[in-house]
Amino acid sequence: MTAERGASFSTKVPEGDTRPRRVCDTCGFVDYENPRLVAGVVAIRDEKVLLCRRAIEPRKGFWTLPAGFLEDRESVEEGARREAQEEAGAEVDLEGVLGVYSVPRISQVHIYFRARLLTTELAPGEESLEARLFAWDEIPWEELAFPSVTWALSHYRETRGSAAFPARSNPVGERGDYRS
Amino acid sequence: MTAERGASFSTKVPEGDTRPRRVCDTCGFVDYENPRLVAGVVAIRDEKVLLCRRAIEPRKGFWTLPAGFLEDRESVEEGARREAQEEAGAEVDLEGVLGVYSVPRISQVHIYFRARLLTTELAPGEESLEARLFAWDEIPWEELAFPSVTWALSHYRETRGSAAFPARSNPVGERGDYRS
Repeated sequence: MTAERGASFSTKVPEGDTRPRRVCDTCGFVDYENPRLVAGVVAIRDEKVLLCRRAIEPRKGFWTLPAGFLEDRESVEEGARREAQEEAGAEVDLEGVLGVYSVPRISQVHIYFRARLLTTELAPGEESLEARLFAWDEIPWEELAFPSVTWALSHYRETRGSAAFPARSNPVGERGDYRS
Repeated sequence: MTAERGASFSTKVPEGDTRPRRVCDTCGFVDYENPRLVAGVVAIRDEKVLLCRRAIEPRKGFWTLPAGFLEDRESVEEGARREAQEEAGAEVDLEGVLGVYSVPRISQVHIYFRARLLTTELAPGEESLEARLFAWDEIPWEELAFPSVTWALSHYRETRGSAAFPARSNPVGERGDYRS
């Protein structure tokens, strides 16, 4: 999951390795492609859930939970809190791991926390057109950005009223392909 | 978290990005460093836990849970099952996410599942000197390879007898630095 300019890569098995990797033809750099981690929150205040409307592709204009790629040397919890802050100006108190979802097609793993939203004034960041709270019967199910957003919201509903709850994973048979 | 031969990198903010990244001086390749995911299992049979003794550095000769880096286009569950197979010849049935541990110093996130060990004949793989079952009072606590192994075992103990259990995270204040 990298970007390059003018680089040319060949696929070969590096010395001491067992799998083919992308190796730069120019400098020998080995581009180990490991799945990328996304950290996010289902943040709740007054039984309403915080959603952001995406200002960027993919799925621009669709609603999502605050979430994004974990940065280097960041814990999952720090990443989840940072994304809530960056995308919605929201301070959150994490209550536990709600779901660990794999999207193998795009080599991503999404970790969502159930969280209490502490902020009353939301402030959408650069990647959000809007940030607002939705009561359960207001959630725009048909306008959610990604399958894992739907899963996390559904799994949140199952945990309501429970102080402790098991972490969920992908619904059976679901691999996170986009809904058309 | 990459290896290179003869590559020279400078740290700069790529166009359209907000953070400094390592950029190859030769070809312009941007090495996005995202935390790497490790998937593993606390696998149990007859109330004994499966441990492997490491045949490779780091921590060669120390005991660990079957675990390793998630591969490209692999789900977390697939990775955990593969590592149990590769390191101990073990088939496992995953029961749930036991812990999500962050080790920011080395940009890793470790996800452990509680699992039932289905195999009776263990077969240590290339990365293991031995693979064997330990009763709880036999666990070599002073010879465990990594902090997250200790955490996962301790958290497993808390879940014994519970069909459903919340996922744990790092013990309070612990960041996963090596024990000396």
